[in-house]
Amino acid sequence: MTDPDPLVIFTPSGKRGRFPVGTPVLTAARQLGVDLDSVCGGRGICSKCQVTPAYGDFPKHGVHVTDTALSPWNSVEERYDSTRGLPEGRRLSCQAQVQGDVVIDVPAESQVHRQVIRKRAETRALTMNPATRLHYVEVAEPDMHDPSGDFERLAAALEAQWGVTGLTVDLSMLAALQGVLRKGNWRVTAAVYRDHTGAAPRLLHLFPGLHEDGFYGLAIDLGSTTIAAHLTDLETGEVRAASGLMNPQIRFGEDLMSRVSYVMMNPGGDTEMTNAVRGALSDLAAELARDAGIDPALIVEATLVCNPVMHHLALGIDPTELGQAPFALTTSSALSLPASDLGFAAINPRARLYILPCIAGHVGADAAAVALSEAPEKSEDLVLIIDVGTNAEILLGNTSRVLACSSPTGPAFEGAQISSGQRAAPGAIEKVEIDPVTKEPRFRVIGMKRWSDDPGFAPRVVATGVTGICGSGIIEALAEMRMAGIMDASGLIGSAEQTGSARCIPDGRTHAYVLHDGRAEGGPLITVTQGDVRAIQLAKSALYAGARLLMDEMGVDRVDRVVLAGAFGAHISAKHAMVLGMIPDVPLERVTSAGNAAGTGARIALCDIAARAAIEGNVARITKIETAIAPAFQAHFVAANALPHASDPFPELAKVVQLPDVSFNTGGSGADGSGRRRRRRG
Amino acid sequence: MTDPDPLVIFTPSGKRGRFPVGTPVLTAARQLGVDLDSVCGGRGICSKCQVTPAYGDFPKHGVHVTDTALSPWNSVEERYDSTRGLPEGRRLSCQAQVQGDVVIDVPAESQVHRQVIRKRAETRALTMNPATRLHYVEVAEPDMHDPSGDFERLAAALEAQWGVTGLTVDLSMLAALQGVLRKGNWRVTAAVYRDHTGAAPRLLHLFPGLHEDGFYGLAIDLGSTTIAAHLTDLETGEVRAASGLMNPQIRFGEDLMSRVSYVMMNPGGDTEMTNAVRGALSDLAAELARDAGIDPALIVEATLVCNPVMHHLALGIDPTELGQAPFALTTSSALSLPASDLGFAAINPRARLYILPCIAGHVGADAAAVALSEAPEKSEDLVLIIDVGTNAEILLGNTSRVLACSSPTGPAFEGAQISSGQRAAPGAIEKVEIDPVTKEPRFRVIGMKRWSDDPGFAPRVVATGVTGICGSGIIEALAEMRMAGIMDASGLIGSAEQTGSARCIPDGRTHAYVLHDGRAEGGPLITVTQGDVRAIQLAKSALYAGARLLMDEMGVDRVDRVVLAGAFGAHISAKHAMVLGMIPDVPLERVTSAGNAAGTGARIALCDIAARAAIEGNVARITKIETAIAPAFQAHFVAANALPHASDPFPELAKVVQLPDVSFNTGGSGADGSGRRRRRRG
Repeated sequence: MTDPDPLVIFTPSGKRGRFPVGTPVLTAARQLGVDLDSVCGGRGICSKCQVTPAYGDFPKHGVHVTDTALSPWNSVEERYDSTRGLPEGRRLSCQAQVQGDVVIDVPAESQVHRQVIRKRAETRALTMNPATRLHYVEVAEPDMHDPSGDFERLAAALEAQWGVTGLTVDLSMLAALQGVLRKGNWRVTAAVYRDHTGAAPRLLHLFPGLHEDGFYGLAIDLGSTTIAAHLTDLETGEVRAASGLMNPQIRFGEDLMSRVSYVMMNPGGDTEMTNAVRGALSDLAAELARDAGIDPALIVEATLVCNPVMHHLALGIDPTELGQAPFALTTSSALSLPASDLGFAAINPRARLYILPCIAGHVGADAAAVALSEAPEKSEDLVLIIDVGTNAEILLGNTSRVLACSSPTGPAFEGAQISSGQRAAPGAIEKVEIDPVTKEPRFRVIGMKRWSDDPGFAPRVVATGVTGICGSGIIEALAEMRMAGIMDASGLIGSAEQTGSARCIPDGRTHAYVLHDGRAEGGPLITVTQGDVRAIQLAKSALYAGARLLMDEMGVDRVDRVVLAGAFGAHISAKHAMVLGMIPDVPLERVTSAGNAAGTGARIALCDIAARAAIEGNVARITKIETAIAPAFQAHFVAANALPHASDPFPELAKVVQLPDVSFNTGGSGADGSGRRRRRRG
Repeated sequence: MTDPDPLVIFTPSGKRGRFPVGTPVLTAARQLGVDLDSVCGGRGICSKCQVTPAYGDFPKHGVHVTDTALSPWNSVEERYDSTRGLPEGRRLSCQAQVQGDVVIDVPAESQVHRQVIRKRAETRALTMNPATRLHYVEVAEPDMHDPSGDFERLAAALEAQWGVTGLTVDLSMLAALQGVLRKGNWRVTAAVYRDHTGAAPRLLHLFPGLHEDGFYGLAIDLGSTTIAAHLTDLETGEVRAASGLMNPQIRFGEDLMSRVSYVMMNPGGDTEMTNAVRGALSDLAAELARDAGIDPALIVEATLVCNPVMHHLALGIDPTELGQAPFALTTSSALSLPASDLGFAAINPRARLYILPCIAGHVGADAAAVALSEAPEKSEDLVLIIDVGTNAEILLGNTSRVLACSSPTGPAFEGAQISSGQRAAPGAIEKVEIDPVTKEPRFRVIGMKRWSDDPGFAPRVVATGVTGICGSGIIEALAEMRMAGIMDASGLIGSAEQTGSARCIPDGRTHAYVLHDGRAEGGPLITVTQGDVRAIQLAKSALYAGARLLMDEMGVDRVDRVVLAGAFGAHISAKHAMVLGMIPDVPLERVTSAGNAAGTGARIALCDIAARAAIEGNVARITKIETAIAPAFQAHFVAANALPHASDPFPELAKVVQLPDVSFNTGGSGADGSGRRRRRRG
């Protein structure tokens, strides 16, 4: 009886099998289905298939690996090492041959389906599984005796060497084909796009010779106010550059409905807005390529998330229908398009654009992206996810069911419609504390760590000045005013006599609280007015009422945790948000920020076609709630006007904050529109 | 025992079955798989499903049909008849219900797969089976409670009502969708494109309400010299308009190789030529729509056939590789593209363009179209098909095997490179006869039926003059000169002394034959010179050598029949062509003209997607012969220089024509380059 073939064990997969002496490690890996990359197909010219053999005793695996378990370095490995450097302990798995029992570690960077690390544990794992992959091929030269086209021979090579069947090609690629094939002397690297739909693979780009490194995608979050994009390496998932710019459509209207109105009032207005946003997307792509120092032609894919109105305007579809019942989308499905259809100029002319599905007429691809990033359908506990923006997208769900709606909060949370409001920029007040005894405030402005009562504040703030209050600042100011007894549960700001603070100054028939008086230095007087309170009350009531509507539908009156998404969500203090009743009562530590979850969702869809299939399936399963026609919405909205709420108890909030039981309603004329209640119930 | 259900018999299919009383005739037809059209899906609003019931005794079918075999006219039929008129004896099959045994004739115009009549018996039957079809649907209106996109509801309706699954749509169609759906009050007719590739169906166009009539395709034959197109009704196959124009690329070079040279000498020359031809294609499409009086947006498809150089130039691919060995095509496969990729401006922006496959680097989609039209693979006898143009495409085959090559005949057959040559236009000599005794000619010019020796010729020819000789005229002139003993087998024109005709005049060191002397009337002296003979000899030798090469490969030295294709082929007399040895010897009645077979092939591919699949398969099975590298080509070429041939016997020709055994070679210096042979062998 002869000795058995050597045993080859791969880690971390644990896959194992016996192979004849002389088998290349790459061949063994492929036969076992081990996730081991290769662009050149085992020709020893790319570095993708590197592995780290381990030597010695492995009692766990029951093997002893000797120094001669693999064949010695051959000339290919030596040449590779001398020209490009093979890291210590590494072998090229296509060259190293099995000689005896061996344990082979596949490092993360040699895996095709690399895991990309995400910061928060509860989020969806991101595995690299992009639509576009690079394949090096050697193409048969043309033969007069057996005539066939260059493209047909390239396609045959990709089929024989990489299993790519039914390759398709567009005219711009065809026109470039003969040049690249001849420049590479019939050795080329093909970027082949195969997505999750089962559509025929597409030849996106062709590089002469071996092209191992560098092809990219753009993950774009197209918001009403800002457009953010991440330039992502489609091989590693690494973000190579990130940037944002203002949505140029703002000049047509601050919020979505004013843009829809613009279209209704101005024939051709939709085309103007489409051109504006497409120009901005192109500019942003070019800027990111410049920032990362890459050739923009290497950007071969993009994903886009946005709300339904932005979706239609970016696609060149009149959004008027979205401004009126029944809020009919022209299309709700995910879309896969040539990026050039949206006028992307600098990037690869054949780049593909994937747009996530819309959930409903008011709940867009941005909400789908949040669902993809935050994966409520995988949450064991009931999670409420709020993407705070000019429109708030709200998701509620767990493994059994997911609900979604949107609520028209308006731009107050972003500092608009606030008397001293401004966008988040240096000089804007972003944090506020008010002493409950003295009623004196202190604050921090964006761009400086010191508080306003720190000795070094005054000389340093000269650079920016104190210019206004940003979105998170107004939330904190209002919450602190409520906690300090300057404002009552109905939202009424007390007079100087009622509050005992000279900072409460008359403002017409109401009062305002002076946060900062910079007039002596030529700056503004920054106050919080009764009108500011009303604007925030309207916004937060809409937000809360939307959440309540989903809770009603789910049949619950509490949630287990709250996730605040959106750039703004990252800056809201959970305590302050809850004092104002922006979010339902939960333990404060169960309120987390997901950052730009919509942007993250776009990046996941960019890197992983399985995620595209998943979100398309999940969106179809999400229950959509239309706030505009829900009979209970108005009642929830009115009850949510009080701070934190007229009727819902906030026991978790009460554990950490004692809200003063004050009332400034003197029974006089109508400053308080929310009713005559004097105290919070419950 | 109850009576059996009534028997329903459909003619001409003969399909029959029993159906319960009250079954609509359309339903019975569908269940039996009878080919019966309907656009509206049985709603009684289109006229497509008309049938003619037959009454009385039908011993052949064993039934007696009473007057009450079908339900009486209902209100739908009455309304239809009063508004649009129902022809005598016709019923709408969706309304008429079976009441008793009945025989139902489905007239040709009610069949989905109508046969289109073709003139010649040996050609492929053309069955209407276009990629684009119209389907009327009623689409669900948007519902806030169950939100979905307009497109998704349209696609669902098409799937439920017409079995169209996986509908796709492009951005321009999406942008138009909401307007059309609302204009049609959610009743629309969809033009759905589904070709033979199995690719997902595409929504090409959407009409509000019912659109029954009128959607069109263009069949384009893009030649080096002329571009011809047929505007075809995609429902009936009827040609609604036909037109042609000169290929504007002629200014860059008369023949293909001079155009390739232009590209090699002038950077950017390919783009110039691409723009020129695309502009001409667009103009032609617009002109045809104008001629037919139709909205160009109703043109939703086009097919294109052309030689490989035109193919690459139209597609925007540098044709340089086609000008040098190994004559590599960038792509040889059939292509399905957006017509807008080739800049078609006026027609439907989503129109699809199908380009037939190329056979080899010198044998293009035009040859594939000839193969589609003439179907050599279905011929029991061995057929030689020659498409005569600036380049000749040659096919040889029968049911066992088909071979193809191209041969560089040059433009002499089209009247170029001929001293008195001109394009076929009024005033050009197109027919020639020479009296073998007097050696006097008579001729006809294009635009007049009288011969030049008819009494009324002179006064009438003043309108055009006698301006030159066209391609078919030069063939006839040379053949007549050979038959009249004015020119010998080597192609040498005799002197006045040798021939006994004063029309043989000195022309340098050679002689020319005077066909017409119009100088007295201010017209030209029209002669056939020795140089003209040499040009035609070169062209016909190339043609014959190509055919011989295929016959060698096939292992035969005769063919059963010859088909002359191409516009020029229609005007060549078989006898004259054979006297010159342009084609191999066959009985004269076995030489037929196929007219513009390439254009016909384009029209077949336009009307029948099964034909597209068939020609793609057939092209893959055709054996390609590259004349440029075949060692025997040169020998065949030299031997073919003689008229009709130096060595091949022409027994069939000898049965009808006695060629005089003359020789005008006096042993003097080199007018006869083909050798010193004095007489035809065999």
